[in-house]
Amino acid sequence: MKKRQTNKEQKAVILLSGGMDSATTLAVAGAEGFECHALTIDYGQRARAELKAARRTAAARKVKRHVVLKVDLRAFGGSALTDNIEVPSAEESSGIPATYVPARNTVLLSLALSWAEALGAYDVFIGVNAIDYSGYPDCRPEFVMEFEKLANVATREGVSGRKFRIHAPLLRLTKSEIVRLGVSLGVDYALTLSCYNPKLDGRPCGRCASCALREKGFSEAGTDDPLTKRK
Amino acid sequence: MKKRQTNKEQKAVILLSGGMDSATTLAVAGAEGFECHALTIDYGQRARAELKAARRTAAARKVKRHVVLKVDLRAFGGSALTDNIEVPSAEESSGIPATYVPARNTVLLSLALSWAEALGAYDVFIGVNAIDYSGYPDCRPEFVMEFEKLANVATREGVSGRKFRIHAPLLRLTKSEIVRLGVSLGVDYALTLSCYNPKLDGRPCGRCASCALREKGFSEAGTDDPLTKRK
Repeated sequence: MKKRQTNKEQKAVILLSGGMDSATTLAVAGAEGFECHALTIDYGQRARAELKAARRTAAARKVKRHVVLKVDLRAFGGSALTDNIEVPSAEESSGIPATYVPARNTVLLSLALSWAEALGAYDVFIGVNAIDYSGYPDCRPEFVMEFEKLANVATREGVSGRKFRIHAPLLRLTKSEIVRLGVSLGVDYALTLSCYNPKLDGRPCGRCASCALREKGFSEAGTDDPLTKRK
Repeated sequence: MKKRQTNKEQKAVILLSGGMDSATTLAVAGAEGFECHALTIDYGQRARAELKAARRTAAARKVKRHVVLKVDLRAFGGSALTDNIEVPSAEESSGIPATYVPARNTVLLSLALSWAEALGAYDVFIGVNAIDYSGYPDCRPEFVMEFEKLANVATREGVSGRKFRIHAPLLRLTKSEIVRLGVSLGVDYALTLSCYNPKLDGRPCGRCASCALREKGFSEAGTDDPLTKRK
């Protein structure tokens, strides 16, 4: 991917979870020439190791600023990712799984939009994917399009100035295409963590839907996952 | 306003700031028969007395539950309501004023939506008003309509179950109509606080745009404001 010089010195806000998709998305934003401001939301996820992975990735990519904002969605309840509901294995997951966090990506994008407007940024990046994904409604193209529309009626800038753009560069890629893209941009996947239910030492569980998708991605891309390969 | 018995035992989430508009909105939701769950976002507003006013109002209206959630938007900067930027007087305000918090209502509604979906509620109330207001883009009918559309592509329920509805019962009322409506529903406006820049003892400043609008509303409704009238 060539640097588009037109984006030089333009700021962007990139949602960074600590997983492989958002790390790849951050690399795409950097390759497009944006000055990257990474936003991680600590929404009370049980997988606390995710936040460490986000910090490692932000540091490795030398982002301009990394904000970790606490928004404790556990106050609302309702998901295996935040509550004491058992995370289902990949085989048990069908339909929209118990790991769905109500309206999570709406919350994440609204916070990214708030920061973007305060910064004077018009570009917000999110690593959602609608191909090899868990079936969450807020990972689909319809959702991203609707949020972009909303952003441009909800904000001072969107209404009277330049338009906001919500970038979802992984939206229509398979997991193996994401791996190949990330490898080509120098993403260090050893720093990332994609597991819904990591072990106490921070290693992935190897049995949740997210672990299964990650393994499939690396396997189909013909690349070792540096996080799990045996040394 | 008559109770619509159809809403009996249906839950709703009501955004409650502590100001007169959201207190009136809460009363409307109650009068319509909803079981009320009030949500206050502590976004780092300088007017800390607002949060106390929200607690007083929630208690007085006997809501089912009141959640005060901390989301520190000061991490992003950019508004006189959260930062050390001087709050302009009513006369100084023109266009979208310095008190605009970037994408605030998008953030508030996204959190209300998250709680609603977790609760099994399909109705979210917000006290925005596009008549006697400060010119914020996220107080307009277009914004409320777009958010409702988003809610129904962003959530498990919106996509596959019942539709969400974003209620903005004050949207097209003048401030004096809001006062009359609230008085008719028994709202105790002495418990509310609408000021952007209250004094240390919690009393309103009497000179910001919000104080001016409140005064105009009570004056045109021919009612004393119980918060400021001399005893």
